[in-house]
Amino acid sequence: MLTAGYIGHRSIRIEEHQPDRPSAGEVQIAVAYTGLCGTDLHILHGHMDARISPPQVIGHEMSGTIAAIGDQVEGWSVGDPVTVIPLSWDGTCPACKAGNVHVCQNLALYGIDMPGSLQERWNVPAHTVIALPKGMLLQHAALVEPTAVAVHDVRRGEVQRGDKVVVIGGGPIGVLIAFVARAIGAEPMVVEIDEQRLATVSGLGLRTLNPTATDQDGAVNEWTEGAGADVVFEVSGSSAAVLSATALAKVRGRIVVVAIHPIPREIDLQRVFARELTIVGARVYEREDFVTAVDLLSSDAIPADSLITEIIPLPDTQRAFGELEAGRAMKILIAVARDR
Amino acid sequence: MLTAGYIGHRSIRIEEHQPDRPSAGEVQIAVAYTGLCGTDLHILHGHMDARISPPQVIGHEMSGTIAAIGDQVEGWSVGDPVTVIPLSWDGTCPACKAGNVHVCQNLALYGIDMPGSLQERWNVPAHTVIALPKGMLLQHAALVEPTAVAVHDVRRGEVQRGDKVVVIGGGPIGVLIAFVARAIGAEPMVVEIDEQRLATVSGLGLRTLNPTATDQDGAVNEWTEGAGADVVFEVSGSSAAVLSATALAKVRGRIVVVAIHPIPREIDLQRVFARELTIVGARVYEREDFVTAVDLLSSDAIPADSLITEIIPLPDTQRAFGELEAGRAMKILIAVARDR
Repeated sequence: MLTAGYIGHRSIRIEEHQPDRPSAGEVQIAVAYTGLCGTDLHILHGHMDARISPPQVIGHEMSGTIAAIGDQVEGWSVGDPVTVIPLSWDGTCPACKAGNVHVCQNLALYGIDMPGSLQERWNVPAHTVIALPKGMLLQHAALVEPTAVAVHDVRRGEVQRGDKVVVIGGGPIGVLIAFVARAIGAEPMVVEIDEQRLATVSGLGLRTLNPTATDQDGAVNEWTEGAGADVVFEVSGSSAAVLSATALAKVRGRIVVVAIHPIPREIDLQRVFARELTIVGARVYEREDFVTAVDLLSSDAIPADSLITEIIPLPDTQRAFGELEAGRAMKILIAVARDR
Repeated sequence: MLTAGYIGHRSIRIEEHQPDRPSAGEVQIAVAYTGLCGTDLHILHGHMDARISPPQVIGHEMSGTIAAIGDQVEGWSVGDPVTVIPLSWDGTCPACKAGNVHVCQNLALYGIDMPGSLQERWNVPAHTVIALPKGMLLQHAALVEPTAVAVHDVRRGEVQRGDKVVVIGGGPIGVLIAFVARAIGAEPMVVEIDEQRLATVSGLGLRTLNPTATDQDGAVNEWTEGAGADVVFEVSGSSAAVLSATALAKVRGRIVVVAIHPIPREIDLQRVFARELTIVGARVYEREDFVTAVDLLSSDAIPADSLITEIIPLPDTQRAFGELEAGRAMKILIAVARDR
């Protein structure tokens, strides 16, 4: 089988390997598609070298079918269409014991800490597998994982029908948050500074705002009739956005920290106090978020085809990252199976 | 009647005035005691001169009895023991319309924006008045307002029985938060860097920690068996405490921003994300917090006598502020009525 591995030095190496048989408790998946995301790009750029050990097969947004079944696994048949929750928790830390396994104090992720899905055959514990509806296109199903992120974020934001929601950052996760919020009857507005990305987001039918061209506070104030946004999602990772978020939220509004902020950021705690704001972190997802994401992608709530910019075969993974680096793509999928 | 007014230049002037009769909808209170707080000290130091117009009678933590009743006021009798919720909201802004009048977008406070209780007769709208139980000592009742702050903070923290709670800052509000948390069955620990204040807080029977002498993260980790604190209250106003708060909270723990942070502060959003922390602002109080505060001070949940460092007569208000500035006092009350 072919694998795409990060080998350091901003490089991906394609290799031929003999697949291992699935161990007890595992299934083997014939991977169909793997989406590339910002985290994969961070890995390629060496920003996660302290955590990752090259060569490492990366990739964690995927779809495929069951190819083989290990001992002590029940409930699956070869050929079943599936996706994977790429998380591994210890089950023993205080967070796990409190039932929050997705924020395990020793959480490990497939495609980062363990081999990922940029390989034709991928062995994973059976408990990580999620069934897909028979009629769902596997290229759409490769969007389940990032959609589950968005579902989790929206749930952490406690978004309600009729809410006015500001999403700062118009990348794939920001756009998915906007569509998930819209699916439950909220009105999203996506804030983005890149004109090309703004055009893409507008083209998807979403309301947008460029804070470098428009008085953002004034626009949101007017849009919300003086109240401020019910929920603000910080998906950009920029320091300016953190200061914006508190300015845009209504009294008792919620701010969801979705983006990675590798260094401490300045935040307007006076505003947090005066407006009794709530700021919540949102990390990955829980199983129910995957289930909701499958439902949303199986309906027309999320325009999956419009979000997939290009599908590139596995041997060209390095070029695919180049497309991602250029910043014009929304979502690039790698076709992992050779016959696709 | 005597009044104590802030006249700028770090000065309080005692004056003799003829009291006004209460207007329609108002009651006149014979003020018994007024507590001094950090906000009063900020006013004295000129830090709020942009907001306050000297000469201004300050003071907002008080107790007294009804002395006269204006037209269109029902339900009160002369002599009734009372305290006051010193807030004025517009009733028309989006926050008020949503039912959150205490965080009105145009909130004004008695003793800051309008005359306060450092005067022998104080006219206030009848709807701001809270009845006190007949047997409650009026010097204890002067602690209702700061206790209501603590009750509100603990409620915003969603503190539960059995929670381990860290309170950063061992001033009057921090100590009251600790006692309110203890009253509902939580275990508080007060973090304070001032040795003298630490001794005072320990003397009140509370668990303390000096982060300059002890490895704070390690101590809280050990105390909570590796989980982290359920709730952290930031009551110190220091930038170091904001960074500490995220380090001390458990996965899915809550951080309550109680202190005023006049400038943006650095915060570890990576930790907010990774542990799915919740940060909430907590401002003043709602009516139910006053009711709870009266109950707590009428029981033995809060050691009111031990918290009152000194009672100083109104003509010596300037000296009382000197005692507060020296940092040794927990709570100083001004005896406003001449016969006390």
